[in-house]
Amino acid sequence: MTPFSLAESVLAGERRSIARLISLVEDGGPLVADAMRALYPHTGHAYSIGVTGAPGAGKSSLTERLVSLARGHELTVGVLAVDPSSPFSGGALLGDRVRMQSHATDPEVFIRSMATRGHLGGISLATPEAMRVLDAAGKQIVVIETVGVGQAEVEITDACDTTLVVVNPGWGDAVQAAKAGLMEIADVFVINKADRQGARETERELRQMLDLSPAERKPEIIQTIATKNEGLEPLWAAIERHRDYQQERGLLDGRRRRRVALEIREIAIERYRRRINTEAGELIEELSAQVHDRSIDPYAAADRVIAHL
Amino acid sequence: MTPFSLAESVLAGERRSIARLISLVEDGGPLVADAMRALYPHTGHAYSIGVTGAPGAGKSSLTERLVSLARGHELTVGVLAVDPSSPFSGGALLGDRVRMQSHATDPEVFIRSMATRGHLGGISLATPEAMRVLDAAGKQIVVIETVGVGQAEVEITDACDTTLVVVNPGWGDAVQAAKAGLMEIADVFVINKADRQGARETERELRQMLDLSPAERKPEIIQTIATKNEGLEPLWAAIERHRDYQQERGLLDGRRRRRVALEIREIAIERYRRRINTEAGELIEELSAQVHDRSIDPYAAADRVIAHL
Repeated sequence: MTPFSLAESVLAGERRSIARLISLVEDGGPLVADAMRALYPHTGHAYSIGVTGAPGAGKSSLTERLVSLARGHELTVGVLAVDPSSPFSGGALLGDRVRMQSHATDPEVFIRSMATRGHLGGISLATPEAMRVLDAAGKQIVVIETVGVGQAEVEITDACDTTLVVVNPGWGDAVQAAKAGLMEIADVFVINKADRQGARETERELRQMLDLSPAERKPEIIQTIATKNEGLEPLWAAIERHRDYQQERGLLDGRRRRRVALEIREIAIERYRRRINTEAGELIEELSAQVHDRSIDPYAAADRVIAHL
Repeated sequence: MTPFSLAESVLAGERRSIARLISLVEDGGPLVADAMRALYPHTGHAYSIGVTGAPGAGKSSLTERLVSLARGHELTVGVLAVDPSSPFSGGALLGDRVRMQSHATDPEVFIRSMATRGHLGGISLATPEAMRVLDAAGKQIVVIETVGVGQAEVEITDACDTTLVVVNPGWGDAVQAAKAGLMEIADVFVINKADRQGARETERELRQMLDLSPAERKPEIIQTIATKNEGLEPLWAAIERHRDYQQERGLLDGRRRRRVALEIREIAIERYRRRINTEAGELIEELSAQVHDRSIDPYAAADRVIAHL
């Protein structure tokens, strides 16, 4: 299958081709660009929702409920669950995904776990590409679920149209969210597992922290119990209000344009990175031995690599 | 102060200069390279220990205890607590650091929280540079503490000589560690808060997962209660055994050389990134509007940026 025929069957919504192209995106091979370029004119229609928070906050259950809600509104849905990839084996654990099986037979729902095995640009480049595949395949809602504790992971969810930050009741959870840099990227805060002790205190704690922020619009705070399907309709309404807020003020276009600017930059950098790996691998091997011996320093070595390219 | 005189007073162990140079490293300014180059021949003596794990696992308490142990062995210590930086305000919360105050008056201990405000290469480049500052300043042990849930954060701790992965008792914590890619980078597993229910089950769970690994050496698993100072001597001994294991087999040099190769690559990439920002900012603005309108695609736009440089 050529990149162009692959792109065509993705546009036709063919599930196996969608899966195949996302795998290619994960691997970061050079053929991806051709397929993605063919898809590009057909994208820009999906609304993307990021779901992030600490491990164990209940992001998967919440995502599953969001899918049900979207389906209830007769919207087609794509889900990308971005698992941080292991630096050595490159494996992503799929255990949580099993819970998504309630949607497994719905042809209008496409669910995919994603790691970033060989992608040189890492998840920050692979995720927008995979989002675009789902967009091109006609999914109206694309949900990106990722653990929100790392720099790259935070950037991913921030690249969505509406970002949900999920915390749990309990002392310190709001502080941990702030430490992870999640305070400023939240468009809606979700206090999930709200039947646990401390939900009200956590909400108060969040409000206090939000009051310190100079932002014009304060994120709404919604309490949910995803496993019992409680609070999900109010959450959906909050997402819609955030979408409307952005659209009425023309903010959504600006947000998407900034995301595109970042992506252009990252693609250029990734191509440079690839050149280093293909053309300077041996040189770097030699140089690293010299640097390790302290006969040159890492900056001089980097200059030699740059001059070589 | 010139970069060279700054480097000289760092070599003399002058605390304010150490702090100043680490701030420069965080900001990622162009002057840093000169100071770092001057320091480089005087580095390579420190032994580095990475401490990573989920938020709330007790990394700060454990780090504080490690500092005490190292001081008990009459070793000088530097600590870098890497807080994921907020993508917007660039702030790092320093609350946890307050607990380190027991060492605040010890002249042989240097403790520093680190964010990565302006550093274009992010924490993955700023951290090895800051480690090297402490190494050059004569610290014999350098402890890097970071939340281990993101891609970049995992890479940082993996760049240490011995990496401790901290988990807590409780169902699923081992699985979460594996999801975060921490299984393969652990040289020693620490089950902290081991007086909580489930410590034995967590240890068994970890062992089962480790048994699946093809690695020749299985990480030791040590139970600790950092707040009660329990299990710390055994942990120190395990770190020493891991150090000896590597030194006897010549593995430490290989590990450090691989780290240097990564660093050379990252410096070269960072310089390219900086060129993009200084020389192609306006072009990217224009291109992102065209990409947003779908008149060109992001790959074509990236090619235009590359051609421009």
